[in-house]
Amino acid sequence: MDKRKVEVCFSTALFPFHKSPNAHVVVVDILRATSAICTAFANGAKGIIPVATVEEAREYKERGYMVASERDGVKIDFADFGNSPFNFTPDRVQGKEVVYSTTNGTQAITMASSGASVSIGSFLNLSAVGTWLNSQNEGDVLILCAGWKGKFCLEDTLFAGALTEILIDEYGFTTVCDSAKASLDLWSIAKPNLYGYVQKVAQRYRLGKLGLDDVIEYCHTPNLTSIVPVLQQGVLRPVAVG
Amino acid sequence: MDKRKVEVCFSTALFPFHKSPNAHVVVVDILRATSAICTAFANGAKGIIPVATVEEAREYKERGYMVASERDGVKIDFADFGNSPFNFTPDRVQGKEVVYSTTNGTQAITMASSGASVSIGSFLNLSAVGTWLNSQNEGDVLILCAGWKGKFCLEDTLFAGALTEILIDEYGFTTVCDSAKASLDLWSIAKPNLYGYVQKVAQRYRLGKLGLDDVIEYCHTPNLTSIVPVLQQGVLRPVAVG
Repeated sequence: MDKRKVEVCFSTALFPFHKSPNAHVVVVDILRATSAICTAFANGAKGIIPVATVEEAREYKERGYMVASERDGVKIDFADFGNSPFNFTPDRVQGKEVVYSTTNGTQAITMASSGASVSIGSFLNLSAVGTWLNSQNEGDVLILCAGWKGKFCLEDTLFAGALTEILIDEYGFTTVCDSAKASLDLWSIAKPNLYGYVQKVAQRYRLGKLGLDDVIEYCHTPNLTSIVPVLQQGVLRPVAVG
Repeated sequence: MDKRKVEVCFSTALFPFHKSPNAHVVVVDILRATSAICTAFANGAKGIIPVATVEEAREYKERGYMVASERDGVKIDFADFGNSPFNFTPDRVQGKEVVYSTTNGTQAITMASSGASVSIGSFLNLSAVGTWLNSQNEGDVLILCAGWKGKFCLEDTLFAGALTEILIDEYGFTTVCDSAKASLDLWSIAKPNLYGYVQKVAQRYRLGKLGLDDVIEYCHTPNLTSIVPVLQQGVLRPVAVG
């Protein structure tokens, strides 16, 4: 049997060029959407409803849902809270469904929904995502980096490299994708001192200007949870792994 | 005075997100368009007319121009020759204007033409491009990697890293761009053995299937020429540097 392949896409704007109808798509937005989603499930959330637009988020709010939403790092006025993982505390989210809309990450999720599966990856659930992808018996994997307004982001790429490494080294995947190979090489540089490396990413400066950079170290901490959020009928649900 | 900035764009599909009206745009398509263009000028070409579509190339052919054109590595039927740098020999191009249209590279050139300047970069004229950009007294620099049908390409990225290194280390530029930082890091890995590193790029396999991979080593040879092709009224003209 041919080896399963892994491919990396550096931006939602490049997704149309990578599209493979049979691929399992892993959506990544390390700072901060997918780290926040993983945190919400680690803290007991029952579901997360990702919506791409502020208008959709507002409609849900009017119907009584709890809404987390931001644009450019700033909480939307009607939202219950913004995009920091630290907002998704057990007292707020346990047993709840939360509507979620962010600048880049949730748009990537809705874009990816034609894939064989859509799952959520972050350093917080890195190993679990690898294990879960391996447990899906067939199909290639596309790691979709949300990026920042169409642009390449280093921190998403480092995660893509870390996950690609696991899929190849532990589960026998292969790759012919230049983006995956670049991700592996960048990860090899960053891995010995990940938090030191990410001091230079542009998103740190953007968050720093807004006083929102308290999450950087947390968002680069591997394997705090073994839950993989998986899209089911438009809603992200927690799948416990291992 | 603020330092001049350098930014890297990994694909023509990402260009709209990077666009800066004051930037000097350096177009890169190492395998093979921009390497071929630099070779043509090294061999005495008077001008190269980049056209994005096959239809435009055909119109020029009907008006008597020499046409170099390919799609997906294969020569277009009516073209005089295809995209290998080895086709642009002195006996063919000296003193001539050549019309040129390729899968990715010439489309990047026409796309970039709203910049402060459009120049052509390849390993063949690496140092000369750095010197020429420095001689333009102001304006930021955007290195536009043509990529492959919208996708990220490693070999273009390595050149972007090499040029970024020169601009920062020799000419005092700075960068806040994640793509530039990634390019620098990938270049730092590849630099000690560039030809060894590029054995893994996807474009090598694509060209190899067509028997067109004889150009790989040549296209990664630094500083064979000190001519920088610069777009002037829609035609690339040779600018001798140093």
